[in-house]
Amino acid sequence: MITLVHEGRTVESAVTPAPGELSIALLGLGKVGSSVAALALDPPPSLTRRLRIIGALVRRPAREPELNGLVALTTDAVTLLESQPDVVVELLGGVEPARSLILAALNGGIPVVTANKSLLARHGDELLDAAARTGTPLRYEASVIAGVPFLGTFSRRPLASDVRRITGIVNGTSNFILSTMTSEGTSFADALTHSQRRGFAEPDPSKDVGGIDAAEKLSVLLRQFGGWSVHPDALDVSGIDGLTVEDLRQAAVFGGAVKPVIHAEWTGDEAAAFAGPAFVSGAHPLARIDGVQNAVCLVGRSGELCLAGPGAGPDVTAATVIDDVLEVVDQDRERQHAAYRGARRPRLTEAATGWFVRVTAETKLPDGRDVSDLLSADGVWLRRVSDRGRCRNATAQWLLTYPCSRTRLDRALLALCAAAGCSTFAIRALEGSRE
Amino acid sequence: MITLVHEGRTVESAVTPAPGELSIALLGLGKVGSSVAALALDPPPSLTRRLRIIGALVRRPAREPELNGLVALTTDAVTLLESQPDVVVELLGGVEPARSLILAALNGGIPVVTANKSLLARHGDELLDAAARTGTPLRYEASVIAGVPFLGTFSRRPLASDVRRITGIVNGTSNFILSTMTSEGTSFADALTHSQRRGFAEPDPSKDVGGIDAAEKLSVLLRQFGGWSVHPDALDVSGIDGLTVEDLRQAAVFGGAVKPVIHAEWTGDEAAAFAGPAFVSGAHPLARIDGVQNAVCLVGRSGELCLAGPGAGPDVTAATVIDDVLEVVDQDRERQHAAYRGARRPRLTEAATGWFVRVTAETKLPDGRDVSDLLSADGVWLRRVSDRGRCRNATAQWLLTYPCSRTRLDRALLALCAAAGCSTFAIRALEGSRE
Repeated sequence: MITLVHEGRTVESAVTPAPGELSIALLGLGKVGSSVAALALDPPPSLTRRLRIIGALVRRPAREPELNGLVALTTDAVTLLESQPDVVVELLGGVEPARSLILAALNGGIPVVTANKSLLARHGDELLDAAARTGTPLRYEASVIAGVPFLGTFSRRPLASDVRRITGIVNGTSNFILSTMTSEGTSFADALTHSQRRGFAEPDPSKDVGGIDAAEKLSVLLRQFGGWSVHPDALDVSGIDGLTVEDLRQAAVFGGAVKPVIHAEWTGDEAAAFAGPAFVSGAHPLARIDGVQNAVCLVGRSGELCLAGPGAGPDVTAATVIDDVLEVVDQDRERQHAAYRGARRPRLTEAATGWFVRVTAETKLPDGRDVSDLLSADGVWLRRVSDRGRCRNATAQWLLTYPCSRTRLDRALLALCAAAGCSTFAIRALEGSRE
Repeated sequence: MITLVHEGRTVESAVTPAPGELSIALLGLGKVGSSVAALALDPPPSLTRRLRIIGALVRRPAREPELNGLVALTTDAVTLLESQPDVVVELLGGVEPARSLILAALNGGIPVVTANKSLLARHGDELLDAAARTGTPLRYEASVIAGVPFLGTFSRRPLASDVRRITGIVNGTSNFILSTMTSEGTSFADALTHSQRRGFAEPDPSKDVGGIDAAEKLSVLLRQFGGWSVHPDALDVSGIDGLTVEDLRQAAVFGGAVKPVIHAEWTGDEAAAFAGPAFVSGAHPLARIDGVQNAVCLVGRSGELCLAGPGAGPDVTAATVIDDVLEVVDQDRERQHAAYRGARRPRLTEAATGWFVRVTAETKLPDGRDVSDLLSADGVWLRRVSDRGRCRNATAQWLLTYPCSRTRLDRALLALCAAAGCSTFAIRALEGSRE
């Protein structure tokens, strides 16, 4: 019998694990936590180990009535961890108290499974150091592309992990919104409302559409594949909210699509990385990743690998968390994280990409000269130029440039706008898989 | 000091492993084996464990002069296994002596890594039983899509492995040939010669282009994901050699492509599976997998996952084999294959797919009736009909049908040919990912 306390009252948990059962302390009982509990209480036939939730840490015990009585709820994290579960599953989200509780579990030798990319992005070094120092497993497969298991796999395979470039789509909300704008011709605002109604966007969507969620996942991938410690705030991040339906239509005319992309490449002690919307050519493996699908492409010693699948959702995330729980307890602890050697800070540089530029409200150009002439004078060379169209009640034209630095692009666009009285909006452009 | 014997003479191996080194007994020193030896002798920085090839089993010791002196060669398998390596790496290919040597290693408690899909397809039950019985790891990541690690991952993740359908491209030679025929307009024979020159096809390409290699890999996947024991000879297998450039051109007109596909789906105690060329619609995730790229799509409880990457090649395969070696020695042996419960034979049924049909040398149809009328009389309904064209010096027309059984299709085509004096050639057709 495990004794738990919530709201000052002592409750006795009826869910003492039976012999052979895996006991789980669940931190957080939101959508994913509830789905984990539901899988443990009513396991599918493929789940051959019995799982037992010995208690769930909640802020307010009465919040999940349908699981009341089936899962012992508590507000007392200390007693829950002291009940010595086989695994701690952290699904609180955010930094605290998740960070302190995971550290307490690892220091107590209790393996931890988490899906918390914000925490891993910001305190991953500290958590992985604690796991390595104590020889206690820490798993976070569901933190990036929840439906595709690859982080654990590659962490055990040094040659496959010898990667020098990562490109991906890791935010399902942004991808769904851009896909909807493209296929339905709806505005960003309408596509956002639609995705909220379908449950694909949070009531506060700013972390998703603003690129923060993607940057956090990029930070996790940089640590795993490059051994790089990069805080998400240090990354070049932009959101999808500046895009118009006309931009997406023009991307299709250029033979590609605009996708919410993460990209990183490194060599020596330098790394370049960004998270934000980018034009991807039709030949790019990400061009066909639509809706809430996610994908990641890794370029390494074996060429390019691409992994695609569902990125999030409570049931997908819960299944991945439970697979992590099973892996954690089946693992030889002494060798856990033997390969982890700490992460180092790279010198952050800029990725060399092309650009997809919208030029609006252009008036008169100096006689005999066109946009191409003016930009090339500043060393920006155009791959494609669109016909004149309209965007936001103004004349508009779209350009696709060859790779150049953002500094050079900005200088050239400034000179163009000074000459032609226009305004511009630019996102990065990725060519086929070889760029 | 390890004593090895080859060609009746005793040789003393100079390569006794130092403390902390992993010792490998290498069975086979062909292209992949030589690449494994080269990686062990000159490890990349990412390879943090030192590997030592204590000896390589060869048929004729003088065959690999560039490794002579660096790797001790032997024709004496028994002594090599008795030298107690940490891992046996089997790269002989074929059934014997590979099967006997792997069983001897497993029975002696020595972990085994192999890339031998022929052996796994034909004797996988016996080998996995031996591994489970002795608690000795057996790994074969390089046997299917050598450049994409997924077999090991999914074997440890029961919820992710809860799959009901697999579709993939697992033969790089066939995919390269069909891609070349499509992009260059060359005949099958010319594309085959071209791929042999580029090193993508064996001097005897029959196993690749005839579908046997793909069927063997399908057999491995059926065991892993369905728990099904199906000998490759029991599968519905066809080769790509009957296809013409005109077929591929017409597939593009229909908005898709012809790909060398494996497909399996199951429910209850029934499984349907085939390996062979198939029309895939443009919306299908396999439609863009070109050249020597391979891919596998798994449909399970989390939706559809697709994994794509290089399928073969000595260096890719060797890197995957070495990653397997590292995973094997980092693994808790007692829990190895705890999840393996033996495989059972399914009742093999037929996959319900549409068909892509070439109708050639059609003469006169009964007055007022067209191909569509005649086929629908036998319950075969057409989704698309091409314009009249030419193929192999005859008039030709291509059809895309709705799903029906092969029996029904064959009966309908027989009736058509009796009425119109034509001949036909049919391959399966797969629609988007939801079919």
